[in-house]
Amino acid sequence: MIMNKYRLMIPGPTPTPPQVAVAGALPLVDERIPQFAALFDRVLGNLRRVFGTAHDVLVFASSTTGSMEGAIANLFSPGDRVVVVDNGFFAARWVAIARAYQLDVVELAQPWGTVVDNVEVARTLDADPTIRAAICVHCETSTGAVSDLAGFGAATAGVLSIADAASSLGALPVRADDWGLDVVVSGCHKALMTPPGLSFVSVSERAWRAQAVATLPRFYFDWRAAKVAMDHGGTPWTPAVGLIVQLDAALVHLFDEGLDAVAERHVRLGRSVRAAVKALGLTPLAADDDANAVVTAAVCPPYLDAAKLTAALLDGHGVQMSAGYAELANRLIRIGHCGYVDRYDVVVAVAALEQALHDEGHPVEMGAAVAAAQAAYGPASRAVRT
Amino acid sequence: MIMNKYRLMIPGPTPTPPQVAVAGALPLVDERIPQFAALFDRVLGNLRRVFGTAHDVLVFASSTTGSMEGAIANLFSPGDRVVVVDNGFFAARWVAIARAYQLDVVELAQPWGTVVDNVEVARTLDADPTIRAAICVHCETSTGAVSDLAGFGAATAGVLSIADAASSLGALPVRADDWGLDVVVSGCHKALMTPPGLSFVSVSERAWRAQAVATLPRFYFDWRAAKVAMDHGGTPWTPAVGLIVQLDAALVHLFDEGLDAVAERHVRLGRSVRAAVKALGLTPLAADDDANAVVTAAVCPPYLDAAKLTAALLDGHGVQMSAGYAELANRLIRIGHCGYVDRYDVVVAVAALEQALHDEGHPVEMGAAVAAAQAAYGPASRAVRT
Repeated sequence: MIMNKYRLMIPGPTPTPPQVAVAGALPLVDERIPQFAALFDRVLGNLRRVFGTAHDVLVFASSTTGSMEGAIANLFSPGDRVVVVDNGFFAARWVAIARAYQLDVVELAQPWGTVVDNVEVARTLDADPTIRAAICVHCETSTGAVSDLAGFGAATAGVLSIADAASSLGALPVRADDWGLDVVVSGCHKALMTPPGLSFVSVSERAWRAQAVATLPRFYFDWRAAKVAMDHGGTPWTPAVGLIVQLDAALVHLFDEGLDAVAERHVRLGRSVRAAVKALGLTPLAADDDANAVVTAAVCPPYLDAAKLTAALLDGHGVQMSAGYAELANRLIRIGHCGYVDRYDVVVAVAALEQALHDEGHPVEMGAAVAAAQAAYGPASRAVRT
Repeated sequence: MIMNKYRLMIPGPTPTPPQVAVAGALPLVDERIPQFAALFDRVLGNLRRVFGTAHDVLVFASSTTGSMEGAIANLFSPGDRVVVVDNGFFAARWVAIARAYQLDVVELAQPWGTVVDNVEVARTLDADPTIRAAICVHCETSTGAVSDLAGFGAATAGVLSIADAASSLGALPVRADDWGLDVVVSGCHKALMTPPGLSFVSVSERAWRAQAVATLPRFYFDWRAAKVAMDHGGTPWTPAVGLIVQLDAALVHLFDEGLDAVAERHVRLGRSVRAAVKALGLTPLAADDDANAVVTAAVCPPYLDAAKLTAALLDGHGVQMSAGYAELANRLIRIGHCGYVDRYDVVVAVAALEQALHDEGHPVEMGAAVAAAQAAYGPASRAVRT
C-alpha cells in the first residue's frame, strides 16, 4: 500500500499552524502562575478583538455546544419565550437545548441553505412582545449559508440578541458591539485553528442584567463564576491549560496576518471552491455569494452517494471532506475552507474531488475544476506564512 | 538572570510523559474517521480497566467539575435528598453543585484532613430512608486524605453511591463494580497524565435507571446522548480530539507500567514525601498512612506563610508546588506526587523545599529531608520508562 498524506478539509476540527501544533507539546504549567495569567490576559484581549467587543469574553473548557447551553442556562428562566431561526442542523440544536431547559421556543423554520430572514424575525418580535430573545446561527456549518448578523442585530434590538458564530469567528468579521449582539458563542477549533476543547461567549451589559435574574440551574457554565475568576486572571475550574497555550499561538498567528486579510482570504477561498464545485457539475447548496466563505456544501446529483464519495476521497486520496447531516447525509459533500487553509489546499482538495468523481464514473473534464478554482481565487496574494 | 528549569509538582495539571506531549503536536483528524473510532474504542476499554468497571465510562470535553455537575443533573430531580461528606474544598464543591440544582443536601461536615467516616454515612442513611444518594471524594486534593471507597460502597449499598476520583484515578486502585460504586467521576489531568480538558464518568445499571427518571435539565453533559454516540464510536458534540489522542498515549504508558506497579509507586512516593516533610519540621495534614499517596499537604508553622513560600520556591528554584485552599490558603504547602512522577522528582522537590525553608530562616538540617525521602521510598525499583 502506498501513501497518501492525510489532508483535513472539513469545517472543524481544522488544520493547526505549526506554531499551534508545537505549542501542544510544551510542558504544562500551573494555571495559577503569573506567566499563565499574563498569557491568558493576552488571549482574552485578542478574543475581544475577534468578537468585536469591549465587554467580557468568557472561556470554558468544552466544545461549542457547552457554551450554547451556558447561554440558555445563564439568560433564562423556565417558560421564557425565545425565537430561534432554524435553518440547519446547528440552528436546530439551539431549539433542542432551549426546549431541554423548558423554554417556550418559537421556531422560525427556514429551508436548509437559506440565510436568516431578518424581516421575518422583526415581524415575529413585533407581533409578540412576550418574546425575550432571538437566536440565530451566523455560518450554518451544515449548509454553508452565512447570514447577515448586522441585520439580525438591528432586527432584534428590542430583545436579547444571541448569535452562534461557531465556524465564522476568526474567518469573517464579527462586531458584537457595533451590531448590537448581546451574546455571541463560539469555539476554538474552526477558524481559530486550535484543537477542539475550548468554547467562548461574549456577554453584553444587557446580557449580564438578564443573567442576574435568570433562575435556570447552572454551575460549570455559570458566567458569574467565570467572570469573577477571569477578573483574577484565571477560570473557576481547572482550565484546559494546554489548549489555551495553543489558542494563544493561534491568535498571534491570526493577528500576524490581520483580521482584514484573513477575511479577504476566506472570501477568495469561498469563491474558489464554489467555482470548482460548479465546474464539477455539482451545485452549491447556499447562494453563490461572497458571504459564504467558511464551508461549501455541494449538492450531489441523485446517482452519487455523498457518504460513499467522502469515503472514497479519504481512502483513495487522503483528503478528508464531510458528508451532510440528517436528510442530506448522502446528498451533500461539505468542504471546509476556514482557518489555516490557503488556495493550494483548495487546489489539492479540488484535484482529489475531480479524480474521485472521475473514478466513480461522473463525467468531468479533468483539470477544469482546478483551473476554475485558481481563476476564481484571483491573483497572487501576500504574504507567506508558516 | 540564570535559569532554573520549571518543575511541576502540583496535584494537577501534572507533567506529561514525552509520548503524551508529542502526541499533542500531531495533526488533527476528523473524529468521524474509522482510525479515530478505533483509537477512541481503545481509550474507552483502558478507561474501563482503570475505573474497574464493565459498565459504561462516558467521556466529556470539560474539566472534572463538568462531570460532577453532569452526575447531579443526570441522576436527580429537584428536591431529591442526598448526603454529601464534606471533608475538604472539592467535597464542598459537590454541596454547592447539588444546591445549585435544587437538591436537598444533607451535609456531613468533617474536619479537613480526615477521611470519610463510613460508619457515620451508614448511620445517616439508616436514619433517613428518604435519602436517595451518597457522595464522597476519594482523594480530597485540598488535604491529601484518601478515603476508603470500598467501605463507602458498602455503607451506601442501599442508595446511589457516587465517588469523586478526580486525583486518585490512575494512581490508586478504583474498583467501581467490586465496591458497588454507581457513579465514579474523574478527569484526565491528574494521575492520568494528560493536559486538562477531559472528564469521565462511570455509570452502573442502577445509575442508568435513575437517569431515565431524573427531571433536572441537561444537554451538554446528558449521559444518554453520550451513550448513544459512544455506541457509534464517537461523542455527541465535537470531541477534544487532540486531548483524546494524548490520553490514549497516556493510558498506553500507564498500562505499560501496570496498574499494580503504578499503585505501588504512588504509595512509595507518598511515604517518601511524608518522611521528608516531617524531617523538615512540617506536619502532614492527613494521616501518615500508605493510602495518602496522591498529594501531601504539609502544615507550616505559624511564622511561615505558605503562599509566600510557594512563590519563593517558584521564583527562586523553578519548583511549582501549591498553597492551600480557603482558610488554609496560607497554612498549607501541597506537593503533588501523582502521575508521571518518580522518586527523583521528589528528591528535587524536597531539596528545593529544604533550601527555600533554609533561606526563609526556618531551621533545617541540610540534606536530612532528602535522605529521609530516599530512605522512605526504599530500594531501587524497576523498570526505566521515558
